[in-house]
Amino acid sequence: MASLKSWFPIPRSSHFSLANLPFGIISTASGPTPRAAVAIGDHCLDLQEFSASGAFSSLGFDVACFSKPTLNDFAALGRPVHRAVRKHLQDVFAENTSIPDVLQHNPTLQEKSLIRRDQVTLHVPMQIGDYTDFYAGKNHAFNVGCLFRGPDNALQPNYTHLPVGYHGRASSVVVSGTPITRPNGQILENPAATPKVPIFSPCRRLDIELELGAFVSKGNALGTNIPISEAADHIFGFVLLNDWSARDIQAWEYVPLGPFLAKNFGSTISPWVVLTDALEPYRCTGIPNDTPLLPYLEEKEKKNVYDIRLQVDITPEGQPPTTILNSNGRHLLFSFPQMLAHHTVGGCPMAVGDLLGSGTISGLEPGTEGSLLEITQGGKQAVQLNGGVERKFLQDGDTVTFYGVCGTEESGLVGFGECSGKIQPAPKI
Amino acid sequence: MASLKSWFPIPRSSHFSLANLPFGIISTASGPTPRAAVAIGDHCLDLQEFSASGAFSSLGFDVACFSKPTLNDFAALGRPVHRAVRKHLQDVFAENTSIPDVLQHNPTLQEKSLIRRDQVTLHVPMQIGDYTDFYAGKNHAFNVGCLFRGPDNALQPNYTHLPVGYHGRASSVVVSGTPITRPNGQILENPAATPKVPIFSPCRRLDIELELGAFVSKGNALGTNIPISEAADHIFGFVLLNDWSARDIQAWEYVPLGPFLAKNFGSTISPWVVLTDALEPYRCTGIPNDTPLLPYLEEKEKKNVYDIRLQVDITPEGQPPTTILNSNGRHLLFSFPQMLAHHTVGGCPMAVGDLLGSGTISGLEPGTEGSLLEITQGGKQAVQLNGGVERKFLQDGDTVTFYGVCGTEESGLVGFGECSGKIQPAPKI
Repeated sequence: MASLKSWFPIPRSSHFSLANLPFGIISTASGPTPRAAVAIGDHCLDLQEFSASGAFSSLGFDVACFSKPTLNDFAALGRPVHRAVRKHLQDVFAENTSIPDVLQHNPTLQEKSLIRRDQVTLHVPMQIGDYTDFYAGKNHAFNVGCLFRGPDNALQPNYTHLPVGYHGRASSVVVSGTPITRPNGQILENPAATPKVPIFSPCRRLDIELELGAFVSKGNALGTNIPISEAADHIFGFVLLNDWSARDIQAWEYVPLGPFLAKNFGSTISPWVVLTDALEPYRCTGIPNDTPLLPYLEEKEKKNVYDIRLQVDITPEGQPPTTILNSNGRHLLFSFPQMLAHHTVGGCPMAVGDLLGSGTISGLEPGTEGSLLEITQGGKQAVQLNGGVERKFLQDGDTVTFYGVCGTEESGLVGFGECSGKIQPAPKI
Repeated sequence: MASLKSWFPIPRSSHFSLANLPFGIISTASGPTPRAAVAIGDHCLDLQEFSASGAFSSLGFDVACFSKPTLNDFAALGRPVHRAVRKHLQDVFAENTSIPDVLQHNPTLQEKSLIRRDQVTLHVPMQIGDYTDFYAGKNHAFNVGCLFRGPDNALQPNYTHLPVGYHGRASSVVVSGTPITRPNGQILENPAATPKVPIFSPCRRLDIELELGAFVSKGNALGTNIPISEAADHIFGFVLLNDWSARDIQAWEYVPLGPFLAKNFGSTISPWVVLTDALEPYRCTGIPNDTPLLPYLEEKEKKNVYDIRLQVDITPEGQPPTTILNSNGRHLLFSFPQMLAHHTVGGCPMAVGDLLGSGTISGLEPGTEGSLLEITQGGKQAVQLNGGVERKFLQDGDTVTFYGVCGTEESGLVGFGECSGKIQPAPKI
């Protein structure tokens, strides 16, 4: 892939090359009202300011969407508009831009619209109506199933026939950088004892789950479905997602209706939405599925997951970071279009801004598992961290950071930036 | 209880006596913009019109909340304001009102603000951020647990220690009268066969669940909790809730993460929110719980469920209605304040407008079970309906209507009106 070079300085190592241009919601000290922006190198382009100059007038859409506190209105304009806006911005920033007067030769607009990213506050980019978490990381499902039910019953009979999913909690989805408070809850100190009597305690087995998230840009009415052939065009773009999990609370509460308080104390997303088009060059096949699928889940082309290099670091308070795992976005049994087709096949209405989580993305090799539960084999084997400390589960003061990136510096990186959160102690109740 | 008599004609059999005054969102042919109203007898009082006359000026709150398309802003004003507004309206309508000039002697305002209820369109009364469905109907949990797992494992060990709940789908909560489309989905024709290979089919075991819903009027921040002692004041009011359920889809999909497509094709609520204060005289004790509770769930006074007479009718197309069950709101093991205290104990943030479902409310006697699954013992024993027809599960064209009411005609009924939906055929996919 030839690199898209820019007249604007973009560090080669930046996740936000001209090949990316992800969208987010920013505010600044001098402009505290949240508004839309695009990340580019170490900067971001304030789309409210930029569009006010008439820079998008040739595209013929209403730029009021860039003055909103979420990207929902922009997302709702549809994939052709997202594509045209991104392409136009690539033209504006291209080394040999055909439209140098728009920004390259316009120092006033540069001054007003280009802001260093370390000067902005980032917000949850979408108003999320509903959040659904899937379980499409087959290796994770198998690993966790082994821990809970043994290898013979690790995967339920339905697992390869449909993307298993459940409703999550939209209100506790937060943006990278938001502190995560360790949850209190009911746990069994000795799960083997009878009778089973829980104690009330701060979670002792606080974990991460490495996931991708997808935002919906186009909904469907109650009682109708989104066909698999159209599902990709209903997706606005992608973020990293940390589905923080309280394993001890989960083990006690989750039968028979699924995880609840074990998940709803916080779910962290990366702030920049990487458009579906930016990931297009990195489409690949996922985990092969030998099970014949019902037609509503059958994709014409089976390249609908993405080759995204994923990394998770833990940084204990006052210690250097340690990379505890590397995984890849390809380790999914079902694609997001399949998830969307399944989600709606019974008539459930999706809305712009709805968030879908992939499920935890684990590889097959040691060091590629997407949760501490798997890495430590259920808390039996500690992970050694730099600085001579070790972890089975997270401690207060730990910061966990996810990274995800596609491509090469040569072609221009397409990355997600950081998805990070620091653990705060549980409150006294 | 002495009846509150009114100068305004209120039929004795009306659910909407002066002792009730529930809030909803209406629109009319001549006023198509949704706005707040209170139901009274066969009429409703348009609160936008009524408040514009200055009728609430003595109460000192911003009446702009009554011009909004949901009750969220009114709910957010808090229970003291809800109480004062209801009390003021009771004064306005009282037989010997001390303020006859406000409405009784004001035919112009009567003309503008009192609308026959059969002339209004009713809307979902709240903007629902998140919807959580609990499972606090112990008799139902036991009955269903027996069908799925046998009597020895019917209730999981956690069941009496905490209100089991799971996240539902907010986008498919609809108001009474909205048609419900039979969902398509994956079902096992013969669950006993191996290997288990699902077919794609319209749901064949379409069911109801008789529940109460509670709306949140006051939230909490991420990482904080709502103490049990304050939880009641975080509840705005109550509605009837039909948690339509596709039993065959559910049986196949629900392991290990809980119900998903089996529930998210539609959940119907009654349109009028009965305030917590209106139900106050009907507080009673629920199902006794012999399990000692952790302090965060321990209520000082154990009278926090309500003596609400519940009834469910089925009306097949072209047939008369048949009452298939009678139950009571008292058949709950946990109260809504306990649900709210549990929901937030790990730091999950609630927001104004969030909806909590009680779980299916079944009694112990035959004829009091809150779902067809229980009534028909898993589809084995048909229910005989008037007109010579029978049902194991719902057929296309069936209308299901829930009713709920407290008190007597003597004291003035406090009721919920109807919570109704008609089954439409599944679409061809």
